[in-house]
Amino acid sequence: MNERISADRSNTEDVTQRLIEHRRQFSSLEGKRYFNYGGQGPMADSAIAAYAQGQQTIQTKGPFSAEVYDWLIEEGKQIRGAIAATLGTTPETITLTENVTVGCNIPLWGLPWKADDHILIGNCEHPGVVAAVQELCRRYGVTTSTCALSELLSGGEPVEIIKQGLRPETRLVIVSHILWNTGQVLPMGAIADLCHNHAPHTRLLVDAAQSVGTLPLDQPGWRLPETNVDFYAFTGHKWLCGPAGLGALYIRPEVVEETVPTYIGWRGVEVDDAANPTGWEKSGKKYEVATSDYGLWGSLHRAMAIQDNWGSSQVRYDRICALSKRLWEGLRGLSRVRCLLQDAPPPSGLVSFQLLKSDGQPDFEQHSALAKQLETEKIYVRTLLSPNCLRACVHYLTLESEIDELIAKLALH
Amino acid sequence: MNERISADRSNTEDVTQRLIEHRRQFSSLEGKRYFNYGGQGPMADSAIAAYAQGQQTIQTKGPFSAEVYDWLIEEGKQIRGAIAATLGTTPETITLTENVTVGCNIPLWGLPWKADDHILIGNCEHPGVVAAVQELCRRYGVTTSTCALSELLSGGEPVEIIKQGLRPETRLVIVSHILWNTGQVLPMGAIADLCHNHAPHTRLLVDAAQSVGTLPLDQPGWRLPETNVDFYAFTGHKWLCGPAGLGALYIRPEVVEETVPTYIGWRGVEVDDAANPTGWEKSGKKYEVATSDYGLWGSLHRAMAIQDNWGSSQVRYDRICALSKRLWEGLRGLSRVRCLLQDAPPPSGLVSFQLLKSDGQPDFEQHSALAKQLETEKIYVRTLLSPNCLRACVHYLTLESEIDELIAKLALH
Repeated sequence: MNERISADRSNTEDVTQRLIEHRRQFSSLEGKRYFNYGGQGPMADSAIAAYAQGQQTIQTKGPFSAEVYDWLIEEGKQIRGAIAATLGTTPETITLTENVTVGCNIPLWGLPWKADDHILIGNCEHPGVVAAVQELCRRYGVTTSTCALSELLSGGEPVEIIKQGLRPETRLVIVSHILWNTGQVLPMGAIADLCHNHAPHTRLLVDAAQSVGTLPLDQPGWRLPETNVDFYAFTGHKWLCGPAGLGALYIRPEVVEETVPTYIGWRGVEVDDAANPTGWEKSGKKYEVATSDYGLWGSLHRAMAIQDNWGSSQVRYDRICALSKRLWEGLRGLSRVRCLLQDAPPPSGLVSFQLLKSDGQPDFEQHSALAKQLETEKIYVRTLLSPNCLRACVHYLTLESEIDELIAKLALH
Repeated sequence: MNERISADRSNTEDVTQRLIEHRRQFSSLEGKRYFNYGGQGPMADSAIAAYAQGQQTIQTKGPFSAEVYDWLIEEGKQIRGAIAATLGTTPETITLTENVTVGCNIPLWGLPWKADDHILIGNCEHPGVVAAVQELCRRYGVTTSTCALSELLSGGEPVEIIKQGLRPETRLVIVSHILWNTGQVLPMGAIADLCHNHAPHTRLLVDAAQSVGTLPLDQPGWRLPETNVDFYAFTGHKWLCGPAGLGALYIRPEVVEETVPTYIGWRGVEVDDAANPTGWEKSGKKYEVATSDYGLWGSLHRAMAIQDNWGSSQVRYDRICALSKRLWEGLRGLSRVRCLLQDAPPPSGLVSFQLLKSDGQPDFEQHSALAKQLETEKIYVRTLLSPNCLRACVHYLTLESEIDELIAKLALH
């Protein structure tokens, strides 16, 4: 046997053994082959415990008391610090939110719109964000158009596609860092440069639902302050494997002043001695509203620590890419399956594909039926509507054997 | 001994015994004399357990799967149904929110404002809501003024005070059902009638932070559809003793059409087969945004069931009033304490008072110091800024002995 192959194999076996150990912290993965990380990541048992523990601490120390208040300030510092470190930024640029969508709504409703301002939005964005843009246009006489990022599937170049859609009055560009339907990664630094060089008033809002917890955003070249994105909204419950109900928004310091809070409450407001509002908080708290489920903070923090215990963001990202390549290559070997990406595997954990009829045409009706059937066997994939396809996600937590089993299962289709 | 007194005493002893039993479900109350129900209610152990259990169920069944989706639909029906029953309304009028403040922001930003519309707001409202109104006025050229509900302290009549503040262009009136600083209860039916008879465009938004879980809103005369309030926003984490991070908004069916969602996401939007948004959900879900901490739903449901197990909303409200009368009378017997309410005890659980110097003037500086000192003895009260005072709340959970201990403690001041 070739020495190099032997060494690689032995290394793979080591990693697998270590991963099997690591996965013991996630009893929710037991007995499953889980490929819905892009929908929601599994929580480690200790992250669930941290969630209940946070609630218990509040109850024991209060629930409403000065002691709880002090504890929450400290917990807030911890989670803001951990999130900021993950994005290569500083804590005061972080606003805690309930989810990605709220994070997108804050700049959408917070920019000082004028009639005839223009919003350019990629045609692969989430329907919730699309609906928010439509309502904003209706109210303020703003116009919107889409740019066909779906053409990336046929070799289009993202900066060029976005550039074609820009207008003199483009105030905001909205795209995802990782497209949720194809798994493609957009070059955020180049897109931010494009926007900022286009006009002094053009801002870039990034839906980061799929990128935080996937990409090594704490590494040089990836860090948010280096890429110059203006708004970066994400959630903790997908690739960070935290609890549902806690996300965050990064806002570039240069655009904080023009971005005004819309949903407003005591967390974002400063008051005088008679409780009259006098201005906004001087950090990302400016956009926070009121009482939340504070138990989530420690839970997400714990979830992030577990990932870091496995390996650096770069190590995890490299593994995600190696695994999605394995899945993509396996699927390409099947005659009745067509991957959305034809030329290269996705540079992320999202692998989308269609089932084919015997005549080679997509068999849309089978997508839901297969996802349903697989779930009865505790294999979890999901359907997407646009384009109509199935999506299987791999995380650093995924075992090579799970991928092989999924491929074998799809070969029977 | 008079037979009547003897029977009453025996009845009180029975209730106390039963309450001591009931309170065993709340280990967070152990060793404390807790008077901050208006800030946050204590959670029963089983409500905390339900919170972790909900998360565990999601993890076991998914976390992202068709099975979880179906389970969430059922859980959503359960909590909406329970909340609706508590308010004497139907589930489709209920929007689940993160907190009271978000519930107020939904109608604030959702009404179709025109320049020179007027907002009348009580002068005892929470600074978060005041700040939201100020920002809304800045953006839309709407004007605002306050009406002096603080004059209720000197015998003012609420309907008359509000009436004086109305203008032809008054589009929205904002008041609390129970004033958070004095504990006074406003007559919502009469105020709603006043608003609706004033002009066809005048709406009433009620901050119900202190009233849900206090007043018997499921009883004839109190039920929301009978009072005709337009918007009624509240939280589960105060008098319902549920978890922080889950509240709701009632919207009167007649004003749903004119009230448009602002923060928008997949939960409120209907889509076609290609995932294009086509309209709003046909119920209170219309105003819901995106992924939340769904574990909270079962937790609040459990918390509400525990209260119902103790007694009906009327029984609980009667007990709250009897207890606040006991506290109020006790405080009035102290020479160095002055209750904000002079003529009658509050018809709610909130009892606010000031400490006096030897010359009879309020001793503002002592308020924080005393609250802090009491907390070290595990006695929990809070300070308020406007008017500057201390506030002690009693719930049906409060023991008569706790009240007597608080009074004895304040007598030492």
